[in-house]
Amino acid sequence: MLQAALHSGAAHRRSVFEAFARRLPTGRRYGVVAGTGRLLEELASFSFDDPQLSFLSDHRVVDDSTLAWLADFRFTGSISGYAEGEVYFPHSPILTVESTFAEACILETLILSILNHDSAIASAASRMTGAAAGRPCIEMGSRRTHEEAAVAAARASIIGGFASSSNLEAGRRYGIPTVGTAAHSFTLLHDSERAAFEAQVASLGRGTSLLVDTYDVEQGVRTAVEVAGAELGAVRLDSGDLVAQARWVRQLLDDLGNSSTRIVVTSDLDEFAIGLLASAPVDSYGVGTSLVTGSGAPTAGMVYKLVSRQDDDGVFVAVAKASKNKASVGGLKHALRRLDAKGVAQAEVVGVGIEPTEDGNDRPLVEQFVRDGVVLDGWTGPSAVTRAADRHARSVVELPGACRRLQRGEPVIPTEYEEPAS
Amino acid sequence: MLQAALHSGAAHRRSVFEAFARRLPTGRRYGVVAGTGRLLEELASFSFDDPQLSFLSDHRVVDDSTLAWLADFRFTGSISGYAEGEVYFPHSPILTVESTFAEACILETLILSILNHDSAIASAASRMTGAAAGRPCIEMGSRRTHEEAAVAAARASIIGGFASSSNLEAGRRYGIPTVGTAAHSFTLLHDSERAAFEAQVASLGRGTSLLVDTYDVEQGVRTAVEVAGAELGAVRLDSGDLVAQARWVRQLLDDLGNSSTRIVVTSDLDEFAIGLLASAPVDSYGVGTSLVTGSGAPTAGMVYKLVSRQDDDGVFVAVAKASKNKASVGGLKHALRRLDAKGVAQAEVVGVGIEPTEDGNDRPLVEQFVRDGVVLDGWTGPSAVTRAADRHARSVVELPGACRRLQRGEPVIPTEYEEPAS
Repeated sequence: MLQAALHSGAAHRRSVFEAFARRLPTGRRYGVVAGTGRLLEELASFSFDDPQLSFLSDHRVVDDSTLAWLADFRFTGSISGYAEGEVYFPHSPILTVESTFAEACILETLILSILNHDSAIASAASRMTGAAAGRPCIEMGSRRTHEEAAVAAARASIIGGFASSSNLEAGRRYGIPTVGTAAHSFTLLHDSERAAFEAQVASLGRGTSLLVDTYDVEQGVRTAVEVAGAELGAVRLDSGDLVAQARWVRQLLDDLGNSSTRIVVTSDLDEFAIGLLASAPVDSYGVGTSLVTGSGAPTAGMVYKLVSRQDDDGVFVAVAKASKNKASVGGLKHALRRLDAKGVAQAEVVGVGIEPTEDGNDRPLVEQFVRDGVVLDGWTGPSAVTRAADRHARSVVELPGACRRLQRGEPVIPTEYEEPAS
Repeated sequence: MLQAALHSGAAHRRSVFEAFARRLPTGRRYGVVAGTGRLLEELASFSFDDPQLSFLSDHRVVDDSTLAWLADFRFTGSISGYAEGEVYFPHSPILTVESTFAEACILETLILSILNHDSAIASAASRMTGAAAGRPCIEMGSRRTHEEAAVAAARASIIGGFASSSNLEAGRRYGIPTVGTAAHSFTLLHDSERAAFEAQVASLGRGTSLLVDTYDVEQGVRTAVEVAGAELGAVRLDSGDLVAQARWVRQLLDDLGNSSTRIVVTSDLDEFAIGLLASAPVDSYGVGTSLVTGSGAPTAGMVYKLVSRQDDDGVFVAVAKASKNKASVGGLKHALRRLDAKGVAQAEVVGVGIEPTEDGNDRPLVEQFVRDGVVLDGWTGPSAVTRAADRHARSVVELPGACRRLQRGEPVIPTEYEEPAS
């Protein structure tokens, strides 16, 4: 495609591409933008190296003039969009790329891969932390997804409100708080549950979390308290009927004088299980599989479409395909969130080719990330993760309360278009 | 956990860990092992570098003696299991690691991340290629999953029977056949659909595939034939009712004298959509989202459990947790596929601590991958992908025909245990 466009000359036309979602995953009330920081970090070093160029050449994937273009590739355009952590709705203009067609075209897979993956995880994380209603959630899903996706998933879960992650590489790269836990294998390795608990407490102190369900939960709790005493940090429950179990384990801990020992629950939790546990005396949730697989929506379904490009006279022309059930809206988009006098979101207002009319309460949504090839400060690195988590917390609290309902429903606010008066 | 086990001394006990799936994803008839080659490639260079050790030290994640152990880490144990591409069932002993507890424990996340991701994709791919019944399937899902997961997904899809991938990096790393396509943006970039087709044919020749649904499919097909003539390679349909559309587009192509022009269909295909298209005159399928997200089962659900370890006298003791609804079976496993006289699979036979009794038709399933830290030849690199795809094709054809049913059902053969006579 690039080669053919270079040959026809059209590759050099200035173009506007837009990443957006036609719809939210079935039943979801809002989405959460994530991955923008990772994308901008990748963009800063995005080029084609010799082994890559040799592959393209050796296998005649592209011709020599296209190879020469790729060898010199460096993105020189501009990128704007929704801040990482911001909520989004159908047709929100999440990312806009302005450059030559060729440059924007080359970035498509990178942009969509990162946004689709990270936004899917952050959107699931947000539902879970909403259901957890203030109790800390711990990301523990690394073993259930691709090894590099796991690091990105840990990052995205923090943006969606998680407190910490068991992924140490995510801690190293992004400064994310990390926590560990002991597995059943640690207990089975030792000659008895008591020997395992003694080994763990000897090495990690009485404030550690002991996994008490390897054999018999009641005996496990009693042994844990005997070994660690009143200072035992937490017990972890990973099987069985967690609601009932948490209640009697809490009672047992209290009866044994361990009223400050916390209860951590894990075991295939998702937002629905977390919601069910709201009435149980649980202190924190460890979430794995369902989080890193987007809780039923493992990809955010974003697409990347050419919405405007220059003609031979340099005039920008809005373009859109007319394909059945996949039509799109041409033209550069602007966006704001319409808020009422109390600051509650009413609508996602998308201006097609124009800035939407803003009243006093509305909040503009589009930020500049890259200008003429230069990534702007503040959107990358560990600080961007904290900033995105903060943005998300402020963004979601603005939504109508129905956004926290877990039942399937429509987007919690509608998307409205403003177009120039004709 | 590692630190506590190093301190108690139990970390040095020889141990056997096993990766297996307690169940298949809901309704699936079989699973496909994938990722073993990637795992062995990673294992060859798996160690902890200075930035990683500094992070662990600076954040006091582990103590100095554990840091020293990690700095020297190199896997010295042995690994055996199912060959990549082999089908599996609940409790099939897919991967067995024999080493000290510490070494096996350190590999858990790497092993499970790779096997859970890649097997999920290969399992979905196998259902799709089964439904395609010989028509080539093309992997096109890179934009719908994490950017590195995309490369692994392309590899896994080939193991599951796909013919090619649009992921060029997968082509470079693994020698996978790659194919490209033009997007709607290429058509929209040009002043007319005709100008776009002319540009593509001028650069890529008449054998190229033209995307004909940007505006009006009938006009698109007529223009494509006018531009490329009878040698037009293919038209791609990406929207609308694909079954009906493929029929009249085939008729139109034939009427225009383009009987050798192929029809490629894309547009959110999954195994069910491919099955529906069986009666339509379609030549190949491009599959994206549903493939790289495992078609409803984005992770294979494998776990990694300590099943046996030495006691202080050096005697191996089978171990298993008793947790409610998560109990496991202790002991080193062996496995074979029981075949009848016609070579049709009857059962997955798992020997617990013993080699199952083999009759003349049975096929042993466990291969050796790593011996005393050395990765054996034949299981890594591009040739391993071809070998795995071949293994998969031969393995699935052995299964009862019901394995190709797309309806939800039980595993197509049962898992049976053989234990030593007591």
